[in-house]
Amino acid sequence: MAGEVEKNLEAAGYRLPEVGKPLGTYVQSVRCSNFLYISGKLPKENGRLKYPGKIGREVTVEEGKDAARLAALSVLATAKQAVEDLDRVKRIVEVTGYVAVAPGFLDAFEVLEGASEVFVKVYGERGRHARLGVGVAELPSNACLQLQAILEVE
Amino acid sequence: MAGEVEKNLEAAGYRLPEVGKPLGTYVQSVRCSNFLYISGKLPKENGRLKYPGKIGREVTVEEGKDAARLAALSVLATAKQAVEDLDRVKRIVEVTGYVAVAPGFLDAFEVLEGASEVFVKVYGERGRHARLGVGVAELPSNACLQLQAILEVE
Amino acid sequence: MAGEVEKNLEAAGYRLPEVGKPLGTYVQSVRCSNFLYISGKLPKENGRLKYPGKIGREVTVEEGKDAARLAALSVLATAKQAVEDLDRVKRIVEVTGYVAVAPGFLDAFEVLEGASEVFVKVYGERGRHARLGVGVAELPSNACLQLQAILEVE
Repeated sequence: MAGEVEKNLEAAGYRLPEVGKPLGTYVQSVRCSNFLYISGKLPKENGRLKYPGKIGREVTVEEGKDAARLAALSVLATAKQAVEDLDRVKRIVEVTGYVAVAPGFLDAFEVLEGASEVFVKVYGERGRHARLGVGVAELPSNACLQLQAILEVE
Repeated sequence: MAGEVEKNLEAAGYRLPEVGKPLGTYVQSVRCSNFLYISGKLPKENGRLKYPGKIGREVTVEEGKDAARLAALSVLATAKQAVEDLDRVKRIVEVTGYVAVAPGFLDAFEVLEGASEVFVKVYGERGRHARLGVGVAELPSNACLQLQAILEVE
Repeated sequence: MAGEVEKNLEAAGYRLPEVGKPLGTYVQSVRCSNFLYISGKLPKENGRLKYPGKIGREVTVEEGKDAARLAALSVLATAKQAVEDLDRVKRIVEVTGYVAVAPGFLDAFEVLEGASEVFVKVYGERGRHARLGVGVAELPSNACLQLQAILEVE
């Protein structure tokens, strides 16, 4: 029987990306007690970074939302790798969105909705998370955003 | 019988702000096990952002401390909304202070004392937290600081 | 019998620094359940900050790696202060590396390997952590990097 979360993913037209190898001496996620800590996720498609640059300069808000969607799917792909069945994710606990923002471009934080919407579409109320948006100077690979996530798992 | 923490709040002359609605598809806090994760809190009074700008440019260190005080009170207001009685907060575990800083203005990090003092005045030793200060490029709504907090609750 | 982790530290030629006093109204670490939250750690040697400035401007990548090594040792020194015996650290769970980066200098994130290598040399597989690198505008004391760490302890 296909999992409920997988059905929701399919109904929303989402496809989970491959989880690449870490770029250094670390791992994609660590489980401790019922918490799953996910390493920083960048917006990638088919293994390649999408929408490099700063939001409000090289990247529009609409593109940034799509970037956030991709990074959120990467969070879920990493969770699946860790716990095998996405139904075993009980709650999206906390999401920190680091946004590479052109100086003074405050609309940049809207892009995080692209990530939050994925979590709520797929997990419903269990997908509603604590959230924080921070505008940063630079991100790895010149990514326009990076997500940090903590999940509760069975 | 009024809670002990409420008495400390009153004795210190603090008033908890209203907890506004989230600005997007997320929630103000998530509880998982004995941890309460609080969404990013900005310095607000009567629902309006106070002290917008960068610390060391539009905002002085003294104003920044007051901003940190307001954001800390917002953390406590959010915790109260989540667990009803502030006596059920057992520990302020971790506070990350994101500070919007004018380039090169290193005194900006002093402003976080304004938050730490609230927690210790209200909770005593249980209010002593792990802390981290980070100087960032931009924050939502052009806020001068934002607090991220994790609390232990009953 | 000397602890296993202490032996690994010695074999690697690492020496744990003194844990200084906090710079404000907070503590160096907080334990909650089996989690140990460590306050932000800067690269220090003999109590003095090393390698101040921005990576890619005043600080080279090699120097930044050494800075990350120093900050990682400071994480472990703080953990030892909290749990006495470093063998009681079960897992390095999550490490967030805030890097003060010269604008556009993307190689800056490589410096975090200097921290990850410490954790893996000393703890082996238990040292493999979730990791996140963020390029920030300013850090306390003009440090070139700061580490935030969560450890699982007995």
